[in-house]
Amino acid sequence: MAGMEQVATRVAPLHWDGVLSLLDQRRLPWAERWIAVRDAAHAARLIQALAVRGAPAIGIAAAYALAQQARRTGDPRSLGRAARRLAAARPTAVNLAWAVQRIMDAVDAAAPAQRAAEAEQAARALHAEDAAACLRIGALGAGLFPGRGVRLLTHCNTGALATGGIGTALGIVRTLHAQGRLQRVFACEARPVLQGARLTVWECLQDGIPVTLLPDHAAASLLASGQIDGVVLGADRIAADGAVANKLGTYPLAVLAARHGVPFVSAAPLSTFDLACPSGDAIPIEQRDGEEVRRLGRHRLVDAAVSVFNPSFDVTPAELVTALVCERGVVRPVGVATVREMAG
Amino acid sequence: MAGMEQVATRVAPLHWDGVLSLLDQRRLPWAERWIAVRDAAHAARLIQALAVRGAPAIGIAAAYALAQQARRTGDPRSLGRAARRLAAARPTAVNLAWAVQRIMDAVDAAAPAQRAAEAEQAARALHAEDAAACLRIGALGAGLFPGRGVRLLTHCNTGALATGGIGTALGIVRTLHAQGRLQRVFACEARPVLQGARLTVWECLQDGIPVTLLPDHAAASLLASGQIDGVVLGADRIAADGAVANKLGTYPLAVLAARHGVPFVSAAPLSTFDLACPSGDAIPIEQRDGEEVRRLGRHRLVDAAVSVFNPSFDVTPAELVTALVCERGVVRPVGVATVREMAG
Repeated sequence: MAGMEQVATRVAPLHWDGVLSLLDQRRLPWAERWIAVRDAAHAARLIQALAVRGAPAIGIAAAYALAQQARRTGDPRSLGRAARRLAAARPTAVNLAWAVQRIMDAVDAAAPAQRAAEAEQAARALHAEDAAACLRIGALGAGLFPGRGVRLLTHCNTGALATGGIGTALGIVRTLHAQGRLQRVFACEARPVLQGARLTVWECLQDGIPVTLLPDHAAASLLASGQIDGVVLGADRIAADGAVANKLGTYPLAVLAARHGVPFVSAAPLSTFDLACPSGDAIPIEQRDGEEVRRLGRHRLVDAAVSVFNPSFDVTPAELVTALVCERGVVRPVGVATVREMAG
Repeated sequence: MAGMEQVATRVAPLHWDGVLSLLDQRRLPWAERWIAVRDAAHAARLIQALAVRGAPAIGIAAAYALAQQARRTGDPRSLGRAARRLAAARPTAVNLAWAVQRIMDAVDAAAPAQRAAEAEQAARALHAEDAAACLRIGALGAGLFPGRGVRLLTHCNTGALATGGIGTALGIVRTLHAQGRLQRVFACEARPVLQGARLTVWECLQDGIPVTLLPDHAAASLLASGQIDGVVLGADRIAADGAVANKLGTYPLAVLAARHGVPFVSAAPLSTFDLACPSGDAIPIEQRDGEEVRRLGRHRLVDAAVSVFNPSFDVTPAELVTALVCERGVVRPVGVATVREMAG
């Protein structure tokens, strides 16, 4: 895997030294402000409020928050409540509940005096595994785009800020860049919270990756113009039939990519696969507060009384997904059998 | 045409009493500020800067601005310069050049002493014709959606603010509302300038029309969910083959509407048809300043150095357009022959 070891980033969404600190992504790119997490309930509120976001990153943050809670109390019932509060902070990403369960499994298996140490150890392991998974996803995904001058379109933020490493879909972008094969990444702004405009652009600037920003619905013109070699995105949950729940705006990109014959690749760690979820219809879709759309930061766009439709995610059926990339390999074509073979 | 005479609006984008005043749409919905136009160059700058926008409205504004110029000078060369400046203010909407030409034809046909009066008369006629065209488009378009409880999706602003009357696509919405048959209109926000969020929502609130705002790319989820009976939009230029140039984000809505079997209707006055333009490829597409995307009003989203892709319009091929509605009738199916029959 040529160039894999050179792929790196200056960006990280969190820091752990016995206390969890989160880079407040709501303030980016205007300010780099770190928040010291007080307890598990505080972490859950910060996850809910999008101070940290991205399916792998919220899993890692919840894992450390639980390890921090275990330092304070060894009481299993109290830790269980904290775990449930963290797991319920957001409903769509399956990694969140999975990461919390991993820490609780470690706690449950430990002797009472070892609980805090084991929880910390499990959180560090989960973090390191995610970083390794990102490198592997980056290398495998970059392999899907041969040659030089590759032009990719991405959506939302799937980078270092969203993971414990170089990112998933943006890890593919970083890997191509490290290999000298990336011409440019085009980043959709991702209304209403603007994770593309605020976070992906900022991350690319930090690491010197050429990036062009566009309004979400301008992607259609870009795809129609033949200027894009592939669409790469993340996933918050992948159902057993290969349907992908991901940031609002993914599904229209998939429909347009298919129409214009552009490969559509969803990149996510194995923990994103949910074989217990039979199909896209069964994935719970978080409806977020209309104020996200009515306001931009402190700036009000429309009156608070205006009705708003603001789902946080949409679902893309497997038929529109060219390939799924995880740390174990590439699923292609995408369907019940190939998903089970990879993630079962 | 039941209910046609009851359809009205409280909203208007301009006022003429010998001097042209424009409602500054850049300040809506926060402030209702009127700008008195000083001369034709001033009007051209205001059109360019989107103080007034919408293909029919910029045509009417340019017509009055030229009439105002004719009061000041009868010199045909000076008026010709003003006309060229106005016609060139924006490249995509064909109504603009057409409206300017109508005033110049009236000026050219008049005796020198009558030029100003004839120009004003021609501008008033053009304005009144557009108001009548809107009523007729509203009635014809409403007829495409039988029954009660109609739920429409619209994009950008095609209402009173964009025309000389009740609007084109939003005229259809207003007509259904006046007929008691509208359940709700869903308005895409229309990044980057947010004509949907700022203008369409404001217009609907002014006239008591039930409206729900959504991020542009949320329209895909809404269409997939079966909650929409029709997509209604305007047009800035319609080519001879029926291709529609309209606000950025129209083309992806057309692709998604087709995928989900939802009728896609483009409504525009006859002056929008450009039979001299053979196909969508031949329509000039305005690329606007990246600062529109990098900023929101005075609020900076990303650094001024960031590369931006910001076309103002996209082109939807005829195959995706269920019907074109103009004041003369409905074009359905949409193709070279049916477009020529209607507009030739």
